[in-house]
Amino acid sequence: MRILRSYVGGRWQQGDGEGTPVHDAVTGAEIARVSSAGIDMAAALEYGRRTGGPSLRELTFHQRAALLKALGSYLREHRDELYALSARAGATRGDAKFDVDGGIGVLLAYASKGKRELPNDTVYVEGDVEPLSKGGGFVARHVATPLRGVAVQINAFNFPVWGPLEKLAPAFLAGMPSLIKPAGQTAYLTEKLVELVVGSGMLPEGSVQLVCGDAGDLLDHVTEQDVVSFTGSADTARKLRAHPAIVRGAVRFNAEADSLNCSILGPDAKPGTAEFDLYVTQLVTEMTVKAGQKCTAIRRAFVPADLLDDVAAAAAEKLSSITVGDPATADMGALASLEQREEVRRSLKALCAAATVVFGDPDHVDVTGADAERGAFLSPILLSGDPERSEPHEVEAFGPVATLLPYTSTEQVVDFAARGRGSLAGSVVTGDAAFAREVVLGAAAWHGRLLVLDTDDARESTGHGSPMPQLVHGGPGRAGGGEEMGGIRGVLHHMQRTAVQASPAVLTAITGRWTPGAPRVVDEVHPFRKSLAELRVGDAVVAGPRTVTREDVDHFAEFTGDTFYAHTDEAAARENPLFGGIVAHGYLVVSLAAGLFVSPEPGPVLANYGLENLRFLTPVKPGDALTVTLTCKQITPREGADYGEVRWDADVTNADGDSVAKYDVLTLVAKETR
Amino acid sequence: MRILRSYVGGRWQQGDGEGTPVHDAVTGAEIARVSSAGIDMAAALEYGRRTGGPSLRELTFHQRAALLKALGSYLREHRDELYALSARAGATRGDAKFDVDGGIGVLLAYASKGKRELPNDTVYVEGDVEPLSKGGGFVARHVATPLRGVAVQINAFNFPVWGPLEKLAPAFLAGMPSLIKPAGQTAYLTEKLVELVVGSGMLPEGSVQLVCGDAGDLLDHVTEQDVVSFTGSADTARKLRAHPAIVRGAVRFNAEADSLNCSILGPDAKPGTAEFDLYVTQLVTEMTVKAGQKCTAIRRAFVPADLLDDVAAAAAEKLSSITVGDPATADMGALASLEQREEVRRSLKALCAAATVVFGDPDHVDVTGADAERGAFLSPILLSGDPERSEPHEVEAFGPVATLLPYTSTEQVVDFAARGRGSLAGSVVTGDAAFAREVVLGAAAWHGRLLVLDTDDARESTGHGSPMPQLVHGGPGRAGGGEEMGGIRGVLHHMQRTAVQASPAVLTAITGRWTPGAPRVVDEVHPFRKSLAELRVGDAVVAGPRTVTREDVDHFAEFTGDTFYAHTDEAAARENPLFGGIVAHGYLVVSLAAGLFVSPEPGPVLANYGLENLRFLTPVKPGDALTVTLTCKQITPREGADYGEVRWDADVTNADGDSVAKYDVLTLVAKETR
Repeated sequence: MRILRSYVGGRWQQGDGEGTPVHDAVTGAEIARVSSAGIDMAAALEYGRRTGGPSLRELTFHQRAALLKALGSYLREHRDELYALSARAGATRGDAKFDVDGGIGVLLAYASKGKRELPNDTVYVEGDVEPLSKGGGFVARHVATPLRGVAVQINAFNFPVWGPLEKLAPAFLAGMPSLIKPAGQTAYLTEKLVELVVGSGMLPEGSVQLVCGDAGDLLDHVTEQDVVSFTGSADTARKLRAHPAIVRGAVRFNAEADSLNCSILGPDAKPGTAEFDLYVTQLVTEMTVKAGQKCTAIRRAFVPADLLDDVAAAAAEKLSSITVGDPATADMGALASLEQREEVRRSLKALCAAATVVFGDPDHVDVTGADAERGAFLSPILLSGDPERSEPHEVEAFGPVATLLPYTSTEQVVDFAARGRGSLAGSVVTGDAAFAREVVLGAAAWHGRLLVLDTDDARESTGHGSPMPQLVHGGPGRAGGGEEMGGIRGVLHHMQRTAVQASPAVLTAITGRWTPGAPRVVDEVHPFRKSLAELRVGDAVVAGPRTVTREDVDHFAEFTGDTFYAHTDEAAARENPLFGGIVAHGYLVVSLAAGLFVSPEPGPVLANYGLENLRFLTPVKPGDALTVTLTCKQITPREGADYGEVRWDADVTNADGDSVAKYDVLTLVAKETR
Repeated sequence: MRILRSYVGGRWQQGDGEGTPVHDAVTGAEIARVSSAGIDMAAALEYGRRTGGPSLRELTFHQRAALLKALGSYLREHRDELYALSARAGATRGDAKFDVDGGIGVLLAYASKGKRELPNDTVYVEGDVEPLSKGGGFVARHVATPLRGVAVQINAFNFPVWGPLEKLAPAFLAGMPSLIKPAGQTAYLTEKLVELVVGSGMLPEGSVQLVCGDAGDLLDHVTEQDVVSFTGSADTARKLRAHPAIVRGAVRFNAEADSLNCSILGPDAKPGTAEFDLYVTQLVTEMTVKAGQKCTAIRRAFVPADLLDDVAAAAAEKLSSITVGDPATADMGALASLEQREEVRRSLKALCAAATVVFGDPDHVDVTGADAERGAFLSPILLSGDPERSEPHEVEAFGPVATLLPYTSTEQVVDFAARGRGSLAGSVVTGDAAFAREVVLGAAAWHGRLLVLDTDDARESTGHGSPMPQLVHGGPGRAGGGEEMGGIRGVLHHMQRTAVQASPAVLTAITGRWTPGAPRVVDEVHPFRKSLAELRVGDAVVAGPRTVTREDVDHFAEFTGDTFYAHTDEAAARENPLFGGIVAHGYLVVSLAAGLFVSPEPGPVLANYGLENLRFLTPVKPGDALTVTLTCKQITPREGADYGEVRWDADVTNADGDSVAKYDVLTLVAKETR
């Protein structure tokens, strides 16, 4: 039997020995074997550090984003190969799409976020400049730079495609190489995925490695510059967290463990309401998609005590129409393996100390189109339990299993939700926004993600069980205490944040962003006449003065219609506690400033596309003479376009030298002068 | 002998038994004893959770900030009591100020940050609204809510005042109660500090507790909602990180461990340059302030090989003028205890396997004004070592000790810096900004903070060794892998981040911020006529249309001087790739929009103090008719003032309903109509 290959040190390698068999979840047939015996884990890590890291760090965030986008498109073209294999893991076509398309979606979402929210640069600057002295000669800013190690990614069996891609995307964007370790049971899917990735030839050498089989001594070799991300059981998460090498190096360890997620039905959602139906439908969906093998699936279904029987009856009716069997045709396929089914049955036994079965038979299910003996089939099982007992809050049956639990007050259900001691996801189904607010704010401290479902969002909702690349995935406590994805947050998990303290000039040199207080360059060429090829951070123009007259203010009020009393009514303006007399419109000030700093003839500056952080700092009174200083602050060439974005620092001052307005002007500027 | 008291469960308690003696660092006399025997740690934690947490969570961020400010002022009035006691720990007046004033400074800095950067609300909303569907009916946002446990703060002996306050401030601002555990050696100072805090009567009951003595079984009782913050040795950090209760609950554990911090002299800084002198002065300061007992102190002093002798000579000369003895009069006081001195001597022996002594005698020092036999005095010791050996990068002598290490290239010194395997702080002293950039970006992945010192910032610099409340404190690897402070980041370490998914209307209800897509309320009263008492999030005005004519554009160009060709020259504008013809000025669009939405008569709206996130989305052509919708987005009453801030969502649309500009308008609005 074939042994699944690993991709380490830039080549495909096969583990030694007999290997461990991997079985088809539906037929029980052996698919392949896994073995990592003989693979040099220390060498793999070192290869990632020495080869993948440097190549990635040479690329800007936008260049990395473009590669992720290209890879996503490439995988989309080849997704049928992944769908086909998914069926062997018991997955229906829908389950396969969840895994495969979900994973590709993460790549594309990160590509898009990277382009929009990260600079086209290798250094990420976080937050504002922090002044550290009164004189302004000593300032600081936080920068984030890629960790110099490898992102070791230990994935769970249930998402062999989504799992690796969800971890790869932020690591790659950050500039860290990945080493993917799939779970043995479905490693053949991850092998195929990495085969496609490597075959695409798109990613830099060393940026992705794969180890199929045991982790062996892999973790013994991690250092303070590596990151370990784990998805799997809470027990394994605990073991890894206390691993000597992780503890010794204070290695960043991110765990995402399955948890006792809850879904709460609002007391308003009586039978016959849309929310009642939404709740039941969502519960059945979460029980049956991927045969309930989702770390985010609903395990604890809290319903108002007086609605329990109604929910039980409605859910049982829906469940009775679910067919189980051949993933190609049935509504629900098989669990990933016979061992998983045994594990679920054991958990069911434990749960039944505090619950009774409402629907399903743990030991029997009618199977369509497949061999019930050989495949890991299990009926959906709905229980009804006692929420005052500990089992429903502690025992997870990782399959098509959920427990109905009654509650009698908002306070009580918030307390029950907390008894899960940390969950990845929760949901509230209600048409009552006040109830939603109370539950969400009450339960948030125990949750990484909370969904409120109602008739307004039901049609477009991505559902209780779907982590989204834009949103944090991970929860406190039992859920592992980690955070994955969450947009750019997930990228920063792979970077070191460093506070840099320096003079404004040196901080400018280090960050590539002009820092207030740093020298400006005012030469004979107006900076608007410089293309990106010529423009430098710090290039500036000083223009003015322009005296603002009472006539200007009157005229502006009349012309624009902005006749606010502070601009038009001397007596009333005098009463205003902030102005004490007529003041010029803020809009007039910035309009006049633009009139001063603009260079009118056609040139490299194509457009002003926005303003940011505008603050009016000192009232402008008639007679005040305005001067504006515009300084090039940040230059962001756009990949694949002949222009880029330039951010300018604008400082409008009066004759006393006081700033009356400060803001950033955003422009599009051509890369070359035409 | 008196046993230091603990403050738990709302009352002062004394530990049982004999206790462990604490000695005066200067005279060797017994000061007090410490014992936590008999103190019920589980009850203390539960008291914090049940009493302190709920009281704190009732307050808004601004209310908590105001309490921190008041407490800071109160402690400042009483700081002499803390100074007086500090001398017994061997601290000079300067050392005492570093500790006491530094700690008060953190309270005040957090008070100020809290007021300026946090909402006057109990929920923190992080980042933008994330659209999750094309139709806009399903959106998400991250909120942060306080963890429901206790912030357990284990402090080091060297900063008995600053340490506890630096941890208390962000926890308190987040809404989490603190339990302070000082190190035994200087616990009498922390006891005095907490005595002052409790005596002030300012903080809510249960928000601060103190345990003097061993932690006992304290950590056995922490849960997933608690936070453990530790400052101390790397060894202890490792033990705590692997503590079963911390691992079991994935408890947030933040460690800040002393590290082998480096300071790098640039090759440009030859003898005679200002930077050379700055380097030597800083080195000697870091060695002698607090007798070198700072986790951020310079241990590894990297200098260009050809400058090593010059630096050694200059540093030795400066060190020779440092007097050691009675902290009231000498330049440098004593180490915290005789045990600490023994520990330093042991480390010095280990270092001397790879280094030789340039200045000082580990076994002898001339002492002024004190008994050299009884006090824990030690000479400053400067070593010169071999950077290719491991000892200088691994052995920390936690006292007035540093090692000079030669380097020959930028690449090499970056590599040497990394061999510390993670540091809290580093510095580069150079007049060469390119060298500074290369070193900072090369070494950043191993550092929590990096300072570039030159003639521009030297006068105002806060120095290599001073953590700042605005900046992250903590470093990777050996430094503990933690992050403290860093402005609002430090507050968020005490809160759970939760992604909330909902319809715009429900997300508005949960966050208290109007979310685009949520219903607006347009009634007969213009929202500018409503005071904060009357105004509600979602209140809106729709105004327009106003047609923009070619004459308007011409006139605006002439009036403001903004004659950019896209507004004035039809032929040239046609060539512009983005416009293809004359367009209205963006400034004209927002000015006209203000003319539409303004309510001119005197009323509760006092001023427009800024704009944010302005984007011009669609060009406005002559003939376009503009409509503006202004919606109340966020209301922030100001504590102690009769007005507050109101943020408005402005959406300017054309006749096709396309948004031409979107932005936030910031106004000051009175709390009550006068």
